[in-house]
Amino acid sequence: MYLAGVTDTPETPPPVPDSMERALGFELLEHSAERGVGRFAVEDRVRQPFGIVHGGAYAAMAESLASWCTYQAVRGDGNVAMGQSNFTSFMRPVSEGVVTAEARCTHSGRTSWVWEVDFSDDRGRRCASTRVTMAVRPAPG
Amino acid sequence: MYLAGVTDTPETPPPVPDSMERALGFELLEHSAERGVGRFAVEDRVRQPFGIVHGGAYAAMAESLASWCTYQAVRGDGNVAMGQSNFTSFMRPVSEGVVTAEARCTHSGRTSWVWEVDFSDDRGRRCASTRVTMAVRPAPG
Amino acid sequence: MYLAGVTDTPETPPPVPDSMERALGFELLEHSAERGVGRFAVEDRVRQPFGIVHGGAYAAMAESLASWCTYQAVRGDGNVAMGQSNFTSFMRPVSEGVVTAEARCTHSGRTSWVWEVDFSDDRGRRCASTRVTMAVRPAPG
Amino acid sequence: MYLAGVTDTPETPPPVPDSMERALGFELLEHSAERGVGRFAVEDRVRQPFGIVHGGAYAAMAESLASWCTYQAVRGDGNVAMGQSNFTSFMRPVSEGVVTAEARCTHSGRTSWVWEVDFSDDRGRRCASTRVTMAVRPAPG
Repeated sequence: MYLAGVTDTPETPPPVPDSMERALGFELLEHSAERGVGRFAVEDRVRQPFGIVHGGAYAAMAESLASWCTYQAVRGDGNVAMGQSNFTSFMRPVSEGVVTAEARCTHSGRTSWVWEVDFSDDRGRRCASTRVTMAVRPAPG
Repeated sequence: MYLAGVTDTPETPPPVPDSMERALGFELLEHSAERGVGRFAVEDRVRQPFGIVHGGAYAAMAESLASWCTYQAVRGDGNVAMGQSNFTSFMRPVSEGVVTAEARCTHSGRTSWVWEVDFSDDRGRRCASTRVTMAVRPAPG
Repeated sequence: MYLAGVTDTPETPPPVPDSMERALGFELLEHSAERGVGRFAVEDRVRQPFGIVHGGAYAAMAESLASWCTYQAVRGDGNVAMGQSNFTSFMRPVSEGVVTAEARCTHSGRTSWVWEVDFSDDRGRRCASTRVTMAVRPAPG
Repeated sequence: MYLAGVTDTPETPPPVPDSMERALGFELLEHSAERGVGRFAVEDRVRQPFGIVHGGAYAAMAESLASWCTYQAVRGDGNVAMGQSNFTSFMRPVSEGVVTAEARCTHSGRTSWVWEVDFSDDRGRRCASTRVTMAVRPAPG
């Protein structure tokens, strides 16, 4: 299911139906304040020109997942979440199958949240790892 | 023009014609061992669900640009370049226009290269900044 | 001169006279909202066990310099500055002489500032580079 | 015990007896290829001028710990380990007690190793977190 937490929620219709998540085939599967899960199939749209998963695909999935989890956790208090930084390390090239992302929240402060997102391939091997820092601010308006 | 340095070079045909660069509409315009330039139009495929440029779009463009510049600079010596890490900071949300990326090489060592990539919007305001570390290794085979 | 901006200012006596800056021999020479300069001599107290400058010395100097510059720039508005993240890349080992740090502010937002700090050795060669993100918040009390 | 793995090993006497580890009172307690533990007391020499632990102290301890663990693991194969990058996030200010660092290796490749180092205060609360990337290279000579 695509961006479940957002599309399932009538009061926050996403204004961008064909967002980058959709363009790259990202699936956001689970979210909570502590943990999130997502995945994407390794197709050409997430590959760099030489056939392996583009480094930006990991960075983008981590950003989507951390943003989504944080937003869902803080919106009830009238806050929004914005990406502040994204640090991705690439460990193992992947050229086929499905990449799974698992996010763990390591800090949920009043004004910033930090997530560690680990990526694994079909055989469970770590292929990349991202630290995402989210800024939490009062919703405008 | 799309991935000029690669597609223009008959001896290195990209095996992935519909790569992530193409899926996101990235244009890679200039490359050298010191500097590179790229850009992308702000369309839905690079937006997150709430309408601004997805953080992953900056990270991905920086990765493409640094990879391309490094690869073109080291391939003559029988080397390849692989992304090792990508650290992107987000400074200003952008919702329309064109985002331009300018990469400067700050370190070109024997085994690693470092690039600083600055992103600006149509009015020349900095919207994001990425440090990319590339590993340089002998080409396999 | 040591921590000039702080020690010269009677209304903000530093409560920690023998701080880490002093323990490591850091000199903070210039500060403004746009740029800062510092340096340290390469003595054993900033070396790792095998004789080159400890990676943590660069990270620490960048943190000191960015904190000091930001704090001096925002305190007039009743704000304080706190380090949020520090990303240091090591490019060239240094074993003697003086290391000079030059910080440039690349983002001065309402709630966060970003600094790029470049380190050079006696011959002007880049030896390390740090991106520091500072959080700016209302002063407590 | 100070830098146990190094000082205990007659064939690699550290040339820098009064290194930064000693200047800051770092204790390196355990090392293996998978995990390391260190700690430091919160004294003035690791504080910034306003009394909390200096961000550079976390970065430096993470660098020491990851370097030491990696070096001990790869030296048997004639390799050395050099810090390549250090990314530290600051979560909670600490002003007294002891800070404990626990390092986990998340990638041990042929040419690079990655460590995640988590810092906690006396009450077990996370105060900072560092990702260290080490380059592994053949020992010179």
